[in-house]
Amino acid sequence: MSSAASKGLEGIVAAKTYLSDVRGDVGILIYRGYDINQLAGSVCYEEIIHLLHYGTLPNRSELDQLKTKLASYRKLPQGVVDLLLSLPKDTSPMHALRTGISALGCFDPTADDNAMELLQEKALKIIAQIPIVTAYFQLYRQGKPLVESRSDLGEAANFLYLINGGKEAASESVDTLDMCYVLHADHGMNASTFASRVTIATLSDIYSSITSAIGTLKGPLHGGANEAVIRMLQEIGDLDKVDAYIEDCLTNKKKVMGIGHRVYKVLDPRAVNLRKMVVKMGENIAEPKWIQMSDRIAEIMLQEKGLHANVDFYSASVYYSLDIPIDLFTPLFAIARTSGWSAHVLEQMADNRLIRPQSDYIGPEGLKVIPVDQR
Amino acid sequence: MSSAASKGLEGIVAAKTYLSDVRGDVGILIYRGYDINQLAGSVCYEEIIHLLHYGTLPNRSELDQLKTKLASYRKLPQGVVDLLLSLPKDTSPMHALRTGISALGCFDPTADDNAMELLQEKALKIIAQIPIVTAYFQLYRQGKPLVESRSDLGEAANFLYLINGGKEAASESVDTLDMCYVLHADHGMNASTFASRVTIATLSDIYSSITSAIGTLKGPLHGGANEAVIRMLQEIGDLDKVDAYIEDCLTNKKKVMGIGHRVYKVLDPRAVNLRKMVVKMGENIAEPKWIQMSDRIAEIMLQEKGLHANVDFYSASVYYSLDIPIDLFTPLFAIARTSGWSAHVLEQMADNRLIRPQSDYIGPEGLKVIPVDQR
Repeated sequence: MSSAASKGLEGIVAAKTYLSDVRGDVGILIYRGYDINQLAGSVCYEEIIHLLHYGTLPNRSELDQLKTKLASYRKLPQGVVDLLLSLPKDTSPMHALRTGISALGCFDPTADDNAMELLQEKALKIIAQIPIVTAYFQLYRQGKPLVESRSDLGEAANFLYLINGGKEAASESVDTLDMCYVLHADHGMNASTFASRVTIATLSDIYSSITSAIGTLKGPLHGGANEAVIRMLQEIGDLDKVDAYIEDCLTNKKKVMGIGHRVYKVLDPRAVNLRKMVVKMGENIAEPKWIQMSDRIAEIMLQEKGLHANVDFYSASVYYSLDIPIDLFTPLFAIARTSGWSAHVLEQMADNRLIRPQSDYIGPEGLKVIPVDQR
Repeated sequence: MSSAASKGLEGIVAAKTYLSDVRGDVGILIYRGYDINQLAGSVCYEEIIHLLHYGTLPNRSELDQLKTKLASYRKLPQGVVDLLLSLPKDTSPMHALRTGISALGCFDPTADDNAMELLQEKALKIIAQIPIVTAYFQLYRQGKPLVESRSDLGEAANFLYLINGGKEAASESVDTLDMCYVLHADHGMNASTFASRVTIATLSDIYSSITSAIGTLKGPLHGGANEAVIRMLQEIGDLDKVDAYIEDCLTNKKKVMGIGHRVYKVLDPRAVNLRKMVVKMGENIAEPKWIQMSDRIAEIMLQEKGLHANVDFYSASVYYSLDIPIDLFTPLFAIARTSGWSAHVLEQMADNRLIRPQSDYIGPEGLKVIPVDQR
């Protein structure tokens, strides 16, 4: 094949997967046979973890068992807590998260044992611990005391409980965050998932793999986009300034954040679900201006460029309406996607092959080394 | 294209590069136009850094400038030193290295600024600091006091000086390690280099990128192989036990470490150069039995399977002969390859596109969500 065709590996199939399918031409996202539109709002995040990791939606007893296990895995090794509390307080949370998850690998004596049963448990442990790493760093940088997790709370509820310094969140907020987790759990061979597979495919370890995924998600062309969206909305400020701002972007070829997607050529179904949430929240707990501005931006971009809003475009407003600090938006994406990343790690390990592409050399040829003093 | 053809992305071109070319069919490795056989033994590692990063072998003043700069960048932030010294002493060095490099990103306020000039300096800083992270963790786990770097020593010499607790190494040892660095600096689109490009291609940051590369190199199907080779040699024990051991591997389809390579179908030129080193060392400072065992293994594997020894096969014996602890072999690979990884980061950023392949969904279709209590 020609190398030009593969820039960014667009259209190249890198792996077979049972986990999820992104049908970009028709705007459909499937997790293990279920359409995301069916799942969103009718199952909780823990059911998605079970679906991705074990292949089925759990019955009540399986769900209870999984929740109990996740709650029991939440406690971080004290060394990792101390390490997080030794980072500069102005560290951006994604750097702290990447370092914290990498450190978990140092404190797990079984880190390098890739036996499948152990791997599955480590996957659940990381799913349970990544929100704690995020929340503890958040409390620390705010100068607040750390809070013990509550084993009676689910994943979304416990996270909000922790970052609110031990105050239980309203059930509306919990349900909203839980649905965000459901919508962000997996998404085909996206860049961070791909990174997690490239790393585990050398038979490295799951901590290395999730660490790679976090570092990859961090960029503004991937998970980092949700933070960029809200900063753009803040910069615009008001609905009546949207048209001029976007016109300026189009004229000067500046990127409009959260618009367009490598795979979706029609509307991203996650964006549809998230938009519904923002509308609902706008009626209750949040300012309606964010959704009004967002809708106007989306309208112009579709008209002018034929591009649709993507998942980051509306998740930004949802998180913002939940009073979550802007630089925790991407960590929240990481928390939810850990269920998918780790499922891909397990899938890759079940039928592994080293992921090692080629490159096309375009440098010089046949040079002769001249001794340094004659150069 | 068919998904079967792309398992492990074999044969798929993932990027154009000016940096290096692996011609596996003829056993040639090129760095920016120079054959590795010409470079090995005639230029030092710092000249390779200059070549990879700036495109030319340096003249004397450029080389002196680069050496001075690298020496000036060696000092780690105190917070990173403290963090390394807080890890469990039995942490495997690759986990410590990955965590240490990730932590460097937390202590660099410019970590997320990807302006090209800054990126180039951060690349050199990481090249200068990765050996220090490795050496300090080594001293710490041995219960030895940390040693200040010596600015008059080059990269290889300073590393040996540090891990020997402040004792200068023999010039023979320094030259040997330096040549290992030269041979390991870059190697086309290998898995760790590819991981570094996947990570930076989301416009993340160079610390995330090198962290991904370290985690990916760590696996025994990649950099981790050199440790596995020496453990295999130790397990075999003596030359007269080689034949039975390899026969057992072949019969029971066990992997013989350090043999075979995705890209090289003939002899890996790095292996040729490393073998020469081991032979020379066997005459002087090391036991000759390692090279005798290695040669016999290589001979059988070529005869029986048509597979050649690769770079890890002989680097293992070189490092072992240099008295380097076995679990520092892969960190040494990482130290050398950081020059290549970071050059690839710069190259990717100079003409970036998100690396986001597709996957081929093979899971179920059209499932309907049943409420949890009816499952």
